[in-house]
Amino acid sequence: MTKNSDLRVTLSLDEIPKKWYNIAADLKGLQPTLHPGTREPVTEEDLAPVFTKSVIKQEMSTERYITIPKEVRENYISLNRPSPLQRAVNLEKVLRTPAKIYFKREDLSPVGSHKGNSALAQAYYCMKDGIHTITTETGAGQWGTALALASSIFDLDCTVFMVRVSYDQKPFRRTIMQTYGAKVHASPSPVTEYGKKLLKEHPDTTGSLGIAISEAIEMAVRDPGTKYTLGSVANSVILHQTVIGLETMEQMKKAEIVPDHMVACIGGGSNFAGFVFPMMREKMLGKTECEFVAAEPKAAASLTEGEFRYDFGDTAGMTPLFKMFTLGHDFIPSGIHAGGLRYHGMSPLVSEAYNQGLMSARSYDQTETFEAGVLFAKAEGIIPAPESTHAIKAAIDLALEAKAKNEEKTIVFCLSGHGMLDLAGYEKFISGTLASSSRMN
Amino acid sequence: MTKNSDLRVTLSLDEIPKKWYNIAADLKGLQPTLHPGTREPVTEEDLAPVFTKSVIKQEMSTERYITIPKEVRENYISLNRPSPLQRAVNLEKVLRTPAKIYFKREDLSPVGSHKGNSALAQAYYCMKDGIHTITTETGAGQWGTALALASSIFDLDCTVFMVRVSYDQKPFRRTIMQTYGAKVHASPSPVTEYGKKLLKEHPDTTGSLGIAISEAIEMAVRDPGTKYTLGSVANSVILHQTVIGLETMEQMKKAEIVPDHMVACIGGGSNFAGFVFPMMREKMLGKTECEFVAAEPKAAASLTEGEFRYDFGDTAGMTPLFKMFTLGHDFIPSGIHAGGLRYHGMSPLVSEAYNQGLMSARSYDQTETFEAGVLFAKAEGIIPAPESTHAIKAAIDLALEAKAKNEEKTIVFCLSGHGMLDLAGYEKFISGTLASSSRMN
Repeated sequence: MTKNSDLRVTLSLDEIPKKWYNIAADLKGLQPTLHPGTREPVTEEDLAPVFTKSVIKQEMSTERYITIPKEVRENYISLNRPSPLQRAVNLEKVLRTPAKIYFKREDLSPVGSHKGNSALAQAYYCMKDGIHTITTETGAGQWGTALALASSIFDLDCTVFMVRVSYDQKPFRRTIMQTYGAKVHASPSPVTEYGKKLLKEHPDTTGSLGIAISEAIEMAVRDPGTKYTLGSVANSVILHQTVIGLETMEQMKKAEIVPDHMVACIGGGSNFAGFVFPMMREKMLGKTECEFVAAEPKAAASLTEGEFRYDFGDTAGMTPLFKMFTLGHDFIPSGIHAGGLRYHGMSPLVSEAYNQGLMSARSYDQTETFEAGVLFAKAEGIIPAPESTHAIKAAIDLALEAKAKNEEKTIVFCLSGHGMLDLAGYEKFISGTLASSSRMN
Repeated sequence: MTKNSDLRVTLSLDEIPKKWYNIAADLKGLQPTLHPGTREPVTEEDLAPVFTKSVIKQEMSTERYITIPKEVRENYISLNRPSPLQRAVNLEKVLRTPAKIYFKREDLSPVGSHKGNSALAQAYYCMKDGIHTITTETGAGQWGTALALASSIFDLDCTVFMVRVSYDQKPFRRTIMQTYGAKVHASPSPVTEYGKKLLKEHPDTTGSLGIAISEAIEMAVRDPGTKYTLGSVANSVILHQTVIGLETMEQMKKAEIVPDHMVACIGGGSNFAGFVFPMMREKMLGKTECEFVAAEPKAAASLTEGEFRYDFGDTAGMTPLFKMFTLGHDFIPSGIHAGGLRYHGMSPLVSEAYNQGLMSARSYDQTETFEAGVLFAKAEGIIPAPESTHAIKAAIDLALEAKAKNEEKTIVFCLSGHGMLDLAGYEKFISGTLASSSRMN
């Protein structure tokens, strides 16, 4: 018998976590990030021209719990936090599985994904540190959207460099950022020296994420009141995202849900790590046997196909060197619809956890993830983001494995975002013209 | 001091209303709907070829409370019901108003608007009555989307006739319906006799809502296992939508919110009536002084500029005759972005309430409603549907009137849907190319 209290587990605003969890306090053997010139560990001073000082401190911190500022907690409501943990009863029925499936609903955020969790924190710290403008790059658009809203909340100027090809092909992402008040430039743009140079040399270029990063950083470096922000990979971003996993743990406790598997999609690592790291601490303490499953795209399978070594975070080789699973910084993932997962590397924190066997990973072709996404949409009513369909596919596979063994497993996955702005992929899937990831290379 | 319990008022799944409220039990002087041929009151038999019998009974009912079937209540979770009632604290701050502003969040439904509330009920009754296929027409796409999901939930086939021009210009609405499993035909289509005839005579026609209605009805009439459904105007639709207002009343009671104004946008009437009718009963009983404000578009201002008389529900003059406020069934509203409000008439129930002075109405140009929508998006993070921006504009005006008089009014409005699929209007507003409604005629 399914009780209503089990179908949708909610938390009140008063139950929002008061501290983020920093896995750097518990994960042994983490290797330092290196300066690309000296190959020595990067210092706070090295990062100061680019990032705001409060965020740099968090990047370096090994404190286990870090207080969430009151102003951030109070504004979580704008992101629809705390988000419900919901039971996928209809999906269970369709699969005829004895497994119970739950999903954490980051899709309810008005920015469409979990990205707002770190954007809100970073915008707050910039405001507190006296910064007036924040910059970033955006490709798929989720991070830029999140930062645009967060800037509006803390009354900061926000400048987003959007890869030219996305700017032209995804005008609605741009419109959302502009509605929130952000300035959006097609990159390369005439507002930076680097952009001007490129436009002169290659007037018809469609841009790249690497170029957009360079422009956003240039804008930060040339003005002390302007700082650059990152949407994934960094320790501080993952720290902010642990609000997802901390809420989920509270909800599982409330509804007496004991997970056998926790599943999330993975690109740079922010959704996966934010969702599972608080529970991974329990595993390190021997308090749970839960398996943590990262679902990555075959098109950028850094965990299942990459090497664990030092590599640059960007394509151009200008960032510090991170110890991480990487496909090589010159690896160009094929143009899958899950734009948020197209990254050659992996968060150093996730990489170390994977290296130590604290988690597993599975990789999927986009044709099979979209199939899983459509199955989920018909059963549960929600059209998931292409990124999230990777987690759904893994959860479905685990539920079918439980069925084959007739085991009553409990699977909890993170629905990282909704697909309302990514319907082109669904259209191709439905019309039978969606390319397999492998055929795209 | 703002308490957290006041910022977001939620209900548990157990607190979902058990009965809908039928205002036909309390509203005196309602005029019958007439058969277009005989001009006699329509009978259940007249409607039986088109609609399913359970819905026809509700259309005719004067019972005050009608039990919500268990299967419908259980599936409200798929529409994210019960939906929160949220305080717009940031909007209040921006307006520097002493008024308190609350909004009911129908935008959280996965179909993007309140339309799912009636779609779920109608699909359930069709299933219960042994119907295998439901049909409808869609222009803007909200109703078709809602019906597609509801059909998937109750395992019915769903056929949507989508006006050709929308089919071509709004491919993503079509994709959503197809993802939920619906068949979507560009109308006129080759699957009906009427469609075939039109395609032969006018192969290049872009279609119209009237043509799409005719095709959907033809498909229902020629097969007893197929029925047609309506998304607004009808008494039964408004009955199903009262779940919004009943939840809101429960939430207001819980948080001790006493509304001075309840505001919703209005086109055919389903959102407005669903939101305010339960409270209007309190007003008829002398228990509240609350003013009910309908916010309509200047482009289709049936309440503020129409006549109260018998008129056809459709453009072609094939439906029964309704006693309603109407601009004339041959009135063609200009192409405003709030497609869901482009209707020449008004629900007979709303029309009678307006006729009796139980509510007021205001009309707005789309340039001013989009301006209100952008202000709301920046303050509260949610980009509203163009329809909902009408309610927001009215709520803001009321808050500013309260400010001018220094009165601590309480304003509660219904956010009928989100704008993620209507960003073209925002793009025009931001780039300064949005046409005034009046200049469009």
